[in-house]
Amino acid sequence: MTHRRAVVALDVGGTKTAAGLFLETGESLNEKTIPTARDSAQESVSQLVSLVEEALGAAPRDLSIPAVGIVVPGWVNRRERTVWAPNLCGWDHLPLQSLLEQRLQLPIVLDSDRSAYVKGETWLGIAQGLTDIVFLAVGTGIGAGILSAGRIIHGYDDLAGAVGWLALNPVFEELYARMGCFEAEASGNSIGRKASTERLFGDRPGVTARDVLAALESGDERARALMSGVVVYLGMGIANLVSTLNPQMVVLGGGVFQHPSRLFDQVRAEFRRWAQPFAAERVRVELSMLGERAGLAGAACIALENSLPA
Amino acid sequence: MTHRRAVVALDVGGTKTAAGLFLETGESLNEKTIPTARDSAQESVSQLVSLVEEALGAAPRDLSIPAVGIVVPGWVNRRERTVWAPNLCGWDHLPLQSLLEQRLQLPIVLDSDRSAYVKGETWLGIAQGLTDIVFLAVGTGIGAGILSAGRIIHGYDDLAGAVGWLALNPVFEELYARMGCFEAEASGNSIGRKASTERLFGDRPGVTARDVLAALESGDERARALMSGVVVYLGMGIANLVSTLNPQMVVLGGGVFQHPSRLFDQVRAEFRRWAQPFAAERVRVELSMLGERAGLAGAACIALENSLPA
Repeated sequence: MTHRRAVVALDVGGTKTAAGLFLETGESLNEKTIPTARDSAQESVSQLVSLVEEALGAAPRDLSIPAVGIVVPGWVNRRERTVWAPNLCGWDHLPLQSLLEQRLQLPIVLDSDRSAYVKGETWLGIAQGLTDIVFLAVGTGIGAGILSAGRIIHGYDDLAGAVGWLALNPVFEELYARMGCFEAEASGNSIGRKASTERLFGDRPGVTARDVLAALESGDERARALMSGVVVYLGMGIANLVSTLNPQMVVLGGGVFQHPSRLFDQVRAEFRRWAQPFAAERVRVELSMLGERAGLAGAACIALENSLPA
Repeated sequence: MTHRRAVVALDVGGTKTAAGLFLETGESLNEKTIPTARDSAQESVSQLVSLVEEALGAAPRDLSIPAVGIVVPGWVNRRERTVWAPNLCGWDHLPLQSLLEQRLQLPIVLDSDRSAYVKGETWLGIAQGLTDIVFLAVGTGIGAGILSAGRIIHGYDDLAGAVGWLALNPVFEELYARMGCFEAEASGNSIGRKASTERLFGDRPGVTARDVLAALESGDERARALMSGVVVYLGMGIANLVSTLNPQMVVLGGGVFQHPSRLFDQVRAEFRRWAQPFAAERVRVELSMLGERAGLAGAACIALENSLPA
């Protein structure tokens, strides 16, 4: 009897954690999403162990499950085998891989969420079969996953893709020191902050990027004016990735790029003004096809690739 | 009798072409530099053939020479096996590799000069043994060679490293469309142009970056003021490469960074203001050790690597 190969995949987010079982074909079983345990590292580990055990328990008997893939919203230090995630309590140089391997007796493959987004889109999404792509995630913050000649670019200390820090405006502002220039000018959080500062919706509290983007879609002139500056920064950021890396495709994802929109159309036009012309001509700029599932699919893909028979 | 391995290396520049014979040990023989033939592709090919034949003729008898490495100032399209170099007459989709292999009956390994700078510095220069480095060349123009996890990043169409096009100022200027924002603000040519426009040396014609840098070294206040803006752009450009790629080292080369200087000290401080803080803490920013020889050493290194017994 031949066993079909599958892996357990987990995508740990700052607020939600997704889990599922993925077959090599890309078919997934029992996907679920629950609130992320955030009070301590111990609680996090227990939650992840439970999710894996539950997925294994519900797996069909004819599956062989050689590994678990887990992606996390932070810094996966592959040399020290630790994880640092500022949004999760106790995830400071946390030896997550060895903690989970002790409990689960299964190989654990860890990577950052941005690496997973790229891998997910190349496996099951808009970038299937491509070898050179950048996934630019514009949500609360800004980060990028980079695939070059089929390999994830991790950087020497696994910090590559920290593109929220792209310097795009020579007039330094204090905010840039806290989060990076690109993130201060164009992240979802920053769009919300700018709308509040400019009182785009009067005294309304808790204004978010979602409100501004909805107003932009409906043709609101003040939203258009506010976003015209953001569009330039988004175009510049994409252009810098295109000129530096010459990818086949840039995939846009994250909360700010969840749906086709005026913003997407404008950004797709704007980046051409800035990028190296041949590289700009050759690259496709597309929206993520997997959306919120990109990380989970990527976690599965990374686990499958790292557990192939040599 | 064992034969020592060696390769012929050529570094074709817009004005000068260098040639030499490199042993695997890094020792070089008969290095020479001559003016580049620029009138036609045919003349270029003949010149390169003569240089290789001369190097082979002068080689000690105990050498085995499995390949010739040639680096060029332009776009080496590795898929189509052609070269495009705007500064050399007739080098438009030129099938240089096959033309030379027909004449020389030796394997020819071609790459761009910026790939060669990186490889040269990792083989014989300041970055020996490192796996993740960026060589930023700031001369007439601006370009970068990128090594990540030991591999050159070429990009899907061999256009990676076109960082003269980095977008660093949201206020678009017409000049940016011709050469890219970073190059328009910070290349050697642009430093000369800015000094002329601002009449830094009165009516003196033909002012170059060299003049401005000499004035900066001698403490000239107007040179300092002009260069303070350039320093910000150079710092931003370096920071963007550090935040995106997380290298161990950034090597600065090209005419603008030929010697230790005030400019180098200022730029090395400035980039930290912009880059992702952990990545900035980890990276070393150094001057090229090989200077004008980086390309030739790199051509040899690439030829040796591509002709190793499998």
